[in-house]
Amino acid sequence: MDMHTLTRELQVKNKSKIVMLVGDGLGGLPMTAGGKTELETAKTPNLDALAAKGVQGLSIPVKPGIAPGSGPGHLGLFGYDPLEYQIGRGALEATGIGFELQAGDVAIRCNFCTLDNAGNISDRRAGRISTEESTPLAISLRQIKIPGIEVFVEPVKEHRFVVVFRGPGLKGSVKDTDPQATGVPPLEPVAADEASQKTAEVAKEFLKQAKEILKSEKKANFHTMRGFADRPNMPTYHEVYGLRAAAIAVYPMYKGLARLVGMDIVGEALTLQDQMDVLKQNWDDYDFFFLHFKYTDSTGEDGNFDEKVRRTEELDGCLKAITALNPEVLIVTGDHSTPAYLKSHSWHPVPTLLVSDCCRPDPHTTFGESTAITGGLGQFEAKYLMLLALSNAGRMGKFGA
Amino acid sequence: MDMHTLTRELQVKNKSKIVMLVGDGLGGLPMTAGGKTELETAKTPNLDALAAKGVQGLSIPVKPGIAPGSGPGHLGLFGYDPLEYQIGRGALEATGIGFELQAGDVAIRCNFCTLDNAGNISDRRAGRISTEESTPLAISLRQIKIPGIEVFVEPVKEHRFVVVFRGPGLKGSVKDTDPQATGVPPLEPVAADEASQKTAEVAKEFLKQAKEILKSEKKANFHTMRGFADRPNMPTYHEVYGLRAAAIAVYPMYKGLARLVGMDIVGEALTLQDQMDVLKQNWDDYDFFFLHFKYTDSTGEDGNFDEKVRRTEELDGCLKAITALNPEVLIVTGDHSTPAYLKSHSWHPVPTLLVSDCCRPDPHTTFGESTAITGGLGQFEAKYLMLLALSNAGRMGKFGA
Repeated sequence: MDMHTLTRELQVKNKSKIVMLVGDGLGGLPMTAGGKTELETAKTPNLDALAAKGVQGLSIPVKPGIAPGSGPGHLGLFGYDPLEYQIGRGALEATGIGFELQAGDVAIRCNFCTLDNAGNISDRRAGRISTEESTPLAISLRQIKIPGIEVFVEPVKEHRFVVVFRGPGLKGSVKDTDPQATGVPPLEPVAADEASQKTAEVAKEFLKQAKEILKSEKKANFHTMRGFADRPNMPTYHEVYGLRAAAIAVYPMYKGLARLVGMDIVGEALTLQDQMDVLKQNWDDYDFFFLHFKYTDSTGEDGNFDEKVRRTEELDGCLKAITALNPEVLIVTGDHSTPAYLKSHSWHPVPTLLVSDCCRPDPHTTFGESTAITGGLGQFEAKYLMLLALSNAGRMGKFGA
Repeated sequence: MDMHTLTRELQVKNKSKIVMLVGDGLGGLPMTAGGKTELETAKTPNLDALAAKGVQGLSIPVKPGIAPGSGPGHLGLFGYDPLEYQIGRGALEATGIGFELQAGDVAIRCNFCTLDNAGNISDRRAGRISTEESTPLAISLRQIKIPGIEVFVEPVKEHRFVVVFRGPGLKGSVKDTDPQATGVPPLEPVAADEASQKTAEVAKEFLKQAKEILKSEKKANFHTMRGFADRPNMPTYHEVYGLRAAAIAVYPMYKGLARLVGMDIVGEALTLQDQMDVLKQNWDDYDFFFLHFKYTDSTGEDGNFDEKVRRTEELDGCLKAITALNPEVLIVTGDHSTPAYLKSHSWHPVPTLLVSDCCRPDPHTTFGESTAITGGLGQFEAKYLMLLALSNAGRMGKFGA
């Protein structure tokens, strides 16, 4: 049974506030045998004080042994089964640059490429053209007109850009036109099902006009289309939890993921301090706040243990501003682990802390991977975290009589 | 979603080696209140050294409270959901005696029985006829000829033997002919679905000829047929994990189970030392090695606590030969618990140890049931163990972007 069937039925309204602070890639590994993880090395007096009051455990982002990307990692924390709700590549790319997808939109990742005189691809990435060169070219494609279809073209970075088609009767099951090889021509966009026939035709027309516009370019004289995707059709936080939810994030990707589940994106924030200010300003208007902190992940990806430790301490520093607002439920977690040792997202379960006046505390007085193993939350799949949040906030009625 | 959908998509090839050492029935119980289990009583310096480097936990073979047979116990460890992939009784019996089932085969467990003059069953097991008496009788049934069908008859033990039909258009949904009662005649083989009609006809013909061949026997003058089963249709290790997998086992049952998931059966081994030799000889040719050790189970089944302790120490003794080969991932586990106290397979979760350079170690420096409770792997369903093995070996890409 879908947990949302339960939360729709059992949700209770009250005035409680729930804050979920996500340290991206929070979990880690020791760099040497017998050592401590980043989180355990960091000086985190605020997290430790919360650990003494609260309950901790380990969140499994998807299933044991699965390392998730940002999409499935966050959907799990938001309570949407990441194996059920999959976000197509095109939709994630559009989301990642802050494009507001609407229901019925089809989003496509595009790569500029180089065609030779025979019309074969000689470079699948147009010589890794710079962002400075590619941005005006992407924008020049906005002159493409297709009757009955609204067309959006958004530059991304280097050879990459995004195209979104909006109009009636579009579906995203269209095959890539990138042949994944050079010396051959690009493929035609071919619908994988009847319902996506129109999208394939629209894509053909787009490519035809793009070829004409780009023909005099030396490097980027054409482009491929990949990862055609519908906007994922997800019920909103308000529908499934009865929560007015706000997201306070710095990076477009996380704003976009929050938007997909119906959160409002509030404020403009560039720093953690900005985010705390936005939180305070919007405190009265929402029930649930998703706060995203990127740098525990990016420093892990860089393999920079010491910097991840420092960023973890920075994250710890913001907690006083949150606790000053007295949320009924405060959760600190991560969407996955990003150990500096591995320089990548990993499958290791993520230390997760929950504080409320009715959580059942465990004996721990510090917060980290080793303590979380024997924490009161045990090991649990991330998709259940929102159920715990709602219950601890008094927002879930009893199941069955 | 089937985990194999994920592993097919996300599998990554590299040169890593994974060794899974299965101590059959490894988990146990204390014999007296406050006592230690077999594994905790055994002197296991090698396992303890690995525990200090690795991470342990408890593997739940099927679901909490389910005691599995060897079939589901091993399928779980191999990453095949034991509730989804069920091996029919006939197929398991054939597998257990080392018969190589092919796709499309139908395997049947047969019992010699005694018919009285009226044609009613007077003994469902032919007076528990000895193996010495029953073997030539089973072999005499090999003279049965059925047009278009290849027929195999294999003696098993006492009143039991196995029949396998091979030929086009056979399916295994046929009802038992054993009426589970005496004083009544055997039942006719009846197909439970249209697709199994031909199998029922073939079985009828087999029974007709068998009656003629056996008619002058005093005890075993007929036989029943039970547990009609197709060869389970399982994708191979190579398909779902991209692994070249080898099984090194002494007993036919475990070779057979490994064969069902596409492992190669390598070497001839009668002892654990033989198995280590075979492992070393085949090290370069495979990515994954399944090593099976029977005696932690058989001594448990005998209720012989001390002997299970001794066999556990024997198992510990082989670990140096494995670690000398430097596998990237080493797993020590069991397919279920077989506590000497219960003299049977049990539902208790199984101590499981995983060692790799990127496992997240826990504080334990010994390996046993009590430490595994607070091990870093937590309690997990056995079917996820292969995901952990692959990830720790760097053989799984990220799920989603």
